[in-house]
Amino acid sequence: MAETSAEKEQLRKIRAGDVRTASRLIRNLEDGLPEAKSSIKRIFPHTGSAHILGVTGSPGAGKSTLVDALISSFRKKEKTVGVLAVDPTSPFTGGAILGDRIRMQRHAEDPGVFVRSLATRGALGGLAKAVGDAVHVMDVMGKEIIMVETVGTGQQEVEIINHSHTVVVVLVPGMGDEIQAIKAGIMEIADIFVINKADRDGAAQLAGELTAMLSMVPEFPGGWQPPVIRIGNVFDTGPFGASLEELASAIGDHHRRLVETGLLGDRMRRKTMVEIHEALRDAILEPILQDLIKSGEMEDLAGRLLRKESDPYTLAEEVARRYLK
Amino acid sequence: MAETSAEKEQLRKIRAGDVRTASRLIRNLEDGLPEAKSSIKRIFPHTGSAHILGVTGSPGAGKSTLVDALISSFRKKEKTVGVLAVDPTSPFTGGAILGDRIRMQRHAEDPGVFVRSLATRGALGGLAKAVGDAVHVMDVMGKEIIMVETVGTGQQEVEIINHSHTVVVVLVPGMGDEIQAIKAGIMEIADIFVINKADRDGAAQLAGELTAMLSMVPEFPGGWQPPVIRIGNVFDTGPFGASLEELASAIGDHHRRLVETGLLGDRMRRKTMVEIHEALRDAILEPILQDLIKSGEMEDLAGRLLRKESDPYTLAEEVARRYLK
Repeated sequence: MAETSAEKEQLRKIRAGDVRTASRLIRNLEDGLPEAKSSIKRIFPHTGSAHILGVTGSPGAGKSTLVDALISSFRKKEKTVGVLAVDPTSPFTGGAILGDRIRMQRHAEDPGVFVRSLATRGALGGLAKAVGDAVHVMDVMGKEIIMVETVGTGQQEVEIINHSHTVVVVLVPGMGDEIQAIKAGIMEIADIFVINKADRDGAAQLAGELTAMLSMVPEFPGGWQPPVIRIGNVFDTGPFGASLEELASAIGDHHRRLVETGLLGDRMRRKTMVEIHEALRDAILEPILQDLIKSGEMEDLAGRLLRKESDPYTLAEEVARRYLK
Repeated sequence: MAETSAEKEQLRKIRAGDVRTASRLIRNLEDGLPEAKSSIKRIFPHTGSAHILGVTGSPGAGKSTLVDALISSFRKKEKTVGVLAVDPTSPFTGGAILGDRIRMQRHAEDPGVFVRSLATRGALGGLAKAVGDAVHVMDVMGKEIIMVETVGTGQQEVEIINHSHTVVVVLVPGMGDEIQAIKAGIMEIADIFVINKADRDGAAQLAGELTAMLSMVPEFPGGWQPPVIRIGNVFDTGPFGASLEELASAIGDHHRRLVETGLLGDRMRRKTMVEIHEALRDAILEPILQDLIKSGEMEDLAGRLLRKESDPYTLAEEVARRYLK
């Protein structure tokens, strides 16, 4: 692939940490522009240095506030930080209504911090790919720690978390039984648990339940027992005031353990497998869908199904025979 | 396709509402067995009679309790009911930890009610298809109203909701700003809003915010203005005691409106498009992924990426060229 001078310049600028160039590329990735894909191809070989942190948990668990406090903590240690906030999209505003996370704007003047939001507007599997690519951009910018904050705990979020080396799951007391169920669903991906708003009733009980669940696990990979860290208010100096630093330390400890035990390689492999799956979907299924839509055949297929002349599986097999070798 | 007598018998039994045959087929669909796919092909032409209701909302919003109360309400009107509860999977128990929804078991003796859970164990897009197929089974069983209850509000849940004719979004007061954001993300799919636990502080405020958001919409399809129904406790006779019947009526009204305005056809078309997408993924992408995994090539691809010899997009394009005509 012949590189144009504009392409070389783009890579050079991103590697130099240029905010404007990186932001434009992330925007283009989100919009699915073909030139953005070419850019990712070129920057990919320069990725792999950052420590990628996934921060997930239930809505209302206070993830943004926690991420904001962690930025300050990492900056005190002179680490550069990238943050990617994955936001729900409002059909009314057409964009990410949490915007660029107002609270984090206090870091806007700090060249060591780069915060971007990604809206979940892309349907049918595009989001995880856009997130992975945006993380690559921040990685190439030289951000040492990249935090990916996702709202919710659905399957898609779990896939996004597969892009991380260290996963922090944020819980809050008193959210009811279903939360406990979901919590169980993300247990296996958590490296660190945070019980946020731990000054609320039920915090000790939740910590106890979590510890009990963890004690049922016979052996953790690399001998890493996920710590349960209680944080009252990230800005206060109350009984849990020191816990934010405890969390920051745990994140560093986990990364060292990953490196020492060779588990980092496993995590990177897992992340790579997810990326291959997403790229295959993009390269194989997406062009066929576009083709069917453009030719009007998708409409014909829908008509045949609505008239009960066939069933989705039989029609899909017919299409597959035409497109596959 | 030549039908065996066993296949004919299966279809006959499902059409007669046989619980054992239907349950086995749903289980096989969940496990992705090939014979289950053949069964769906055969039953598909007999689908299309049920009113399919999606019930979604945040974790802890009380969806299961509401669905349970709606079962009783529909049964009083002598409607037969199917319920499909989509559950998070626990990696520790390996199954749906909410099980078959203990609370709904009080309907277990009623042949007019069929309740099944589906676990979200299928990664990468399999869930929505399994849900759609299970709904088809209940439809062919003759269930007049089928409720699909999903936990969470992620992209995957939104796709599952695309299988419904009427969508009920359940909210609770006092869940924080992020809930409001998510709420906005599912605004466009909601036909009816329920504010559950409306005896809590903040219910009136939430109702006001919702109404204000809805008033910004210039025109609703078919002139259907989504009602906002406050429910205190589905089992009490307090100030909101009548609201469950209000909800059941609104569900009936919405269905009538869909039929009268011809919007039901649009909804069925949307549902059909989602089914085609899922079937195409299943027929085109899935066999290629399986092929790459079995031949060991997936491992090779991962290795090349980890050694930064290539990038995911370039590798996927190489694979696409080999498999696509």
